Amino acid sequence: MENFSFYVPTSVSFGKGQIENLAPSIKQFGGNKVMLAYGGGSIKANGIYDEVVNELKKANIEYVDCDGIRPNPPVADVRKGIAIYRENACDFILAVGGGSTIDAAKAMAAGVCYDGDVMDLMADGKGEITAAAPLASVLTMAGTGSELDMGGVITGEVNHKKHTIMHPLLYPKFSILDPSYTFSVPEKHSMAGCFDALDHLIECYFVAGSESTDVQNMMNEGLMKSIVKNAPRVLANPEDYDARANIMWASSMALASFQFAVGKKGSNFPMHAMGHELSSLYDMTHGITLALVTPAYLELTLGKVPEYTWLFANFARNVFGVLEDDDFVAAKLGIRKVKEFTLKLNMPKNLKEAGVEEDKLEYLAEKATEWGNIGALCKIEKEEALEIYKRAYA
Amino acid sequence: MENFSFYVPTSVSFGKGQIENLAPSIKQFGGNKVMLAYGGGSIKANGIYDEVVNELKKANIEYVDCDGIRPNPPVADVRKGIAIYRENACDFILAVGGGSTIDAAKAMAAGVCYDGDVMDLMADGKGEITAAAPLASVLTMAGTGSELDMGGVITGEVNHKKHTIMHPLLYPKFSILDPSYTFSVPEKHSMAGCFDALDHLIECYFVAGSESTDVQNMMNEGLMKSIVKNAPRVLANPEDYDARANIMWASSMALASFQFAVGKKGSNFPMHAMGHELSSLYDMTHGITLALVTPAYLELTLGKVPEYTWLFANFARNVFGVLEDDDFVAAKLGIRKVKEFTLKLNMPKNLKEAGVEEDKLEYLAEKATEWGNIGALCKIEKEEALEIYKRAYA
Repeated sequence: MENFSFYVPTSVSFGKGQIENLAPSIKQFGGNKVMLAYGGGSIKANGIYDEVVNELKKANIEYVDCDGIRPNPPVADVRKGIAIYRENACDFILAVGGGSTIDAAKAMAAGVCYDGDVMDLMADGKGEITAAAPLASVLTMAGTGSELDMGGVITGEVNHKKHTIMHPLLYPKFSILDPSYTFSVPEKHSMAGCFDALDHLIECYFVAGSESTDVQNMMNEGLMKSIVKNAPRVLANPEDYDARANIMWASSMALASFQFAVGKKGSNFPMHAMGHELSSLYDMTHGITLALVTPAYLELTLGKVPEYTWLFANFARNVFGVLEDDDFVAAKLGIRKVKEFTLKLNMPKNLKEAGVEEDKLEYLAEKATEWGNIGALCKIEKEEALEIYKRAYA
Repeated sequence: MENFSFYVPTSVSFGKGQIENLAPSIKQFGGNKVMLAYGGGSIKANGIYDEVVNELKKANIEYVDCDGIRPNPPVADVRKGIAIYRENACDFILAVGGGSTIDAAKAMAAGVCYDGDVMDLMADGKGEITAAAPLASVLTMAGTGSELDMGGVITGEVNHKKHTIMHPLLYPKFSILDPSYTFSVPEKHSMAGCFDALDHLIECYFVAGSESTDVQNMMNEGLMKSIVKNAPRVLANPEDYDARANIMWASSMALASFQFAVGKKGSNFPMHAMGHELSSLYDMTHGITLALVTPAYLELTLGKVPEYTWLFANFARNVFGVLEDDDFVAAKLGIRKVKEFTLKLNMPKNLKEAGVEEDKLEYLAEKATEWGNIGALCKIEKEEALEIYKRAYA
């Protein structure tokens, strides 16, 4: 097992009615004037905005709105938030939303404490995060795990490139996770969230060094299995509280401190890299891009790393219940199960159906590998990435 | 799923050589004069004491020793530590050891900030924990999970009664987990630690409300499986780094914020309650007492809660790989596997072999249920506890 660090300081209040902890928690972290960061207004339609604001008012906590944060949040939305925070002399950021809102709020939290432009603070930027505003989240959509991790993804201005921002100071101080807040999330986004969470686990599972990390592998299998079981239950009944609760908690656990990749040789999230390029070019929903590239990525990888066939076979047996003695056959069946699962969740069949143009595949492969190898078990350079996009195409 | 809180603020440095993070971490939390709390001197024999002290000296951190903390730590040892801390005007407690040492250090951390006697601060005491000295751990024995939780168990003066101390302020600020530090732990204590960790998971698994907590159940199954796989590897080769690493990380994860019981109707750790009475009366190793009572507890419980036969069957299939279609038969086989596992770890066959006197069983049952029902799936009152001790006897 490789050396690793583990640190997840966010305090979680999970369950129905936990919004009652909002105001006391904000006060505990010194918040007196809160910037409320949220998206396109669905929280106004479903009543969550009113619930949040009522709690603040009851506790005499001032607030100012930063609305309209878009999916795949563009840096312009982050800059807007930074300006609002400063103009209003806020001292706390509360993100009310899903991954995009929380990610943007993290970049704002870092940005308000930095003199230059917030883009400097991205992982590939020239600045350094040394302070951040206190930040918390009220989660309204499960999937990204942003509520319990220290990272975010922001869309830059050049070619809609995705940039990562990450620092221990960006852990939410607390997150309120009420599964009933996700009842009204539309089917498409609910299912995309389920697949996003599953894919975080897949990214952390198929990583070099897994032969020495039974604990991480086996916890990961358990989490994946819980998503495979509960996503269809959410699809069948969007107000199934326990199914929503299991998806919500699995998503949070999936990403907490990337705990399921710790002790391995390190994942660089290749499926996410390939999916992000699809989102950049077509503004597709993140979880859907993952569903499109993942089976093809796994297929190609299986062919390249015979020494890890056992890992694919364990995945098939322990997550999807495949009963097959031969490791390679089991491995293939497992990948087929992933594909079937995406179809069960009503994801598009392939890139073509999702509206991707065939003549863009080469560009996508170029972009996805711009920074070098993105493989976690074997090298995925431009050629391999192109092969994956092609397999995923039709 | 029931509402719950999740909060695990301890920062973990895991792996070989992580002791290099000791001094910077102590300084980060304001430590200038450290009380070193440890046990009977094994850390002097195996060189860990010297490693720790060298790191402190290099960083010009003063220290004072509090040695001789005994297993099942008696409150006298805690009081001694409190006196040393005060006399020397320390500002940080570093526990170097296993669960007993860390548990005692937690009670010291609370005690040094309290005017009255530390026994007041136990869960059944009249005082309240409102402050605690900063505390960290260097783990030298895997099993209890004390390095990543907020509780401890202290032996009182009256009848060697076990008392719990628990508060979020008692989370270690950081814990250094180097699996190679456990190479020299004697077989008996290594195996007791493995079973202790497994039993924490079993306590959290067989709990009312499990029908709604797939995430927790499935993560738990994964962790249990990793212990069942790796404990025999440690037995076969005590210097198998990866096996020691898996046991160490599984033990920590098992207890972190009791995360595998969250969202259920709440476990009161009945097997621990019954085991603690054996330790109190006979000063037996904690993990061994658990190995002795657990199969009998599960057998009796299975008979009483037919509505949870499915849970016992899942346990058998997903943890021990039992292949059997009938749930009840699978459940029985699973319990047999637990018993076989204890024997594989060279635990005593039964209470009789462990030196327990048959005429003490009634007293033990009386004591274990003194505070009322200790069952997590069904009521375990004195009568049921006696039945369990009897089944475990010969």
